[in-house]
Amino acid sequence: MSLLVVGSIALDSVETPSGKVEEVLGGSATYFSYAASFYTKVRLVGVVGDDFPPEHRELLKSRNVDIAGLEVSRGKTFRWRGSYEGAMNAATTLDVQLNCFGEFEPKIPEAFRDSEYVFLANCSPRLQKSVLSHVKSPKLVMCDTMNFYIDTERKELIDLLGRVDGFIINDAEAAQLTGKHNLVSAGRTILGYGPRFVVIKKGEHGAMLMDNQSIFCIPAFPLEEVVDPTGAGDSFAGGMMGHLSGSGKRDIAALKRALAFGTVIASFNVQGFSLSKFRSIDTSDIEKRFSDFAEMMRF
Amino acid sequence: MSLLVVGSIALDSVETPSGKVEEVLGGSATYFSYAASFYTKVRLVGVVGDDFPPEHRELLKSRNVDIAGLEVSRGKTFRWRGSYEGAMNAATTLDVQLNCFGEFEPKIPEAFRDSEYVFLANCSPRLQKSVLSHVKSPKLVMCDTMNFYIDTERKELIDLLGRVDGFIINDAEAAQLTGKHNLVSAGRTILGYGPRFVVIKKGEHGAMLMDNQSIFCIPAFPLEEVVDPTGAGDSFAGGMMGHLSGSGKRDIAALKRALAFGTVIASFNVQGFSLSKFRSIDTSDIEKRFSDFAEMMRF
Repeated sequence: MSLLVVGSIALDSVETPSGKVEEVLGGSATYFSYAASFYTKVRLVGVVGDDFPPEHRELLKSRNVDIAGLEVSRGKTFRWRGSYEGAMNAATTLDVQLNCFGEFEPKIPEAFRDSEYVFLANCSPRLQKSVLSHVKSPKLVMCDTMNFYIDTERKELIDLLGRVDGFIINDAEAAQLTGKHNLVSAGRTILGYGPRFVVIKKGEHGAMLMDNQSIFCIPAFPLEEVVDPTGAGDSFAGGMMGHLSGSGKRDIAALKRALAFGTVIASFNVQGFSLSKFRSIDTSDIEKRFSDFAEMMRF
Repeated sequence: MSLLVVGSIALDSVETPSGKVEEVLGGSATYFSYAASFYTKVRLVGVVGDDFPPEHRELLKSRNVDIAGLEVSRGKTFRWRGSYEGAMNAATTLDVQLNCFGEFEPKIPEAFRDSEYVFLANCSPRLQKSVLSHVKSPKLVMCDTMNFYIDTERKELIDLLGRVDGFIINDAEAAQLTGKHNLVSAGRTILGYGPRFVVIKKGEHGAMLMDNQSIFCIPAFPLEEVVDPTGAGDSFAGGMMGHLSGSGKRDIAALKRALAFGTVIASFNVQGFSLSKFRSIDTSDIEKRFSDFAEMMRF
């Protein structure tokens, strides 16, 4: 099946207890695309500046990512600088330069408008709705958001939630959006906004999938060393939707299985800076860890 | 099999977003005993004052808890007052009156010295070691601790860990004890102190069981309403050891299954103040939720 992602492409500078990198490839659409590319073809819509290194473009193409929707704008690519400390549960943002991403108005190529699976990565809800209006009849649409838009575009966001199948959000944002500290209550409130299902990401504590009939919780894959958590959430979403798109399914059993794949794929991502760990693995590594993960939870 | 627990018996006053109770039955040994009593006979060693209400004593007896080791001391019973707010991840202690528990020197009745399963609830490591020296040849010994003893009796605690089979500790304490934020690293360091396995409790995020060969992570059972988290950790330990003692097993497969039973039993405990929810359920309720829990994680 065809999987469309619209989101950011960035050059990240990151410092963690494991080390430090400067201007490496990052951004929600990047992590999502690479993660999904293990199981499906990806169509990417995003924007970069004219300083975007050609090798990054080649890397995405080499992964079966169709970059016909990758706009090149005059000026500079989006930059983010951040650091992680201690348990690395949250990044400290040290600098953001939106550059061309600040003016981003996604243009969906005609050839992408029949996409069956759609991921609206973290972006203004107004833009997310605009993207959605250009896709003909998607089978499964999921979206993400962030604290900034919950604060500034709450009404637009809730309206968007009435138009998507699934909403993926982290635990702190779920509490912020709903005013509920209990995750099950927060999930229930979000389902009331309209999506068929909600996925609440809990970082190192795993994730919860909820629809009106059931709740499914899984831990994260336990790792002894986390090098860099940047992109974990988008890799998780990419692994999940890549698996769904690859299988062509979207029922609750498929969603549960996809959630576990997303968890496993995200666990690889955090083992290196940028895409370095992803670049060293193939699907057999993923299948092996998936089988260990399933075994780990058997009792 | 016979399961011995040594720990505190308290009168708790607790306030949570769900309500408020005054001087209700609490304490680590109480929660542990009741939780374990669903699956095994329990032998309790603890101390109360001469103000301890007789109905609490009767309640424990009615649950097959042998209170031959329940010492009645002159003076008052241990009191704790605390409150929980927001996500209720941690209690705020408002008042502690150790009373007779402050002078507690556990005496193990002769008839308890052949106990096969032993739980040394949170208490001074010096006392925990003393108890252990009075048990003839236990098959499985587990102990708990708390931040206070990690600070004040670190050497005694680490010595104790070389003498037990399993150590149960929460995530913050595991980080405090080992200086490691990563739970897998913290667990690995703890295994280096000597126990055969370690259980790291993560509250609403579930628990991790680790031995030198394997890691097992499970989420908590998702609940829409948590009334009072007091005693959750001791109920978890009680459910776990009660199940082990009831089955007579102690291999890794049995430990994994017992961990899941502990999780389910603890999930009932937090649905009411003190023992109120426990008092309203029986093993068929536990089996039903256990089966839902297992189903929830199947993918």
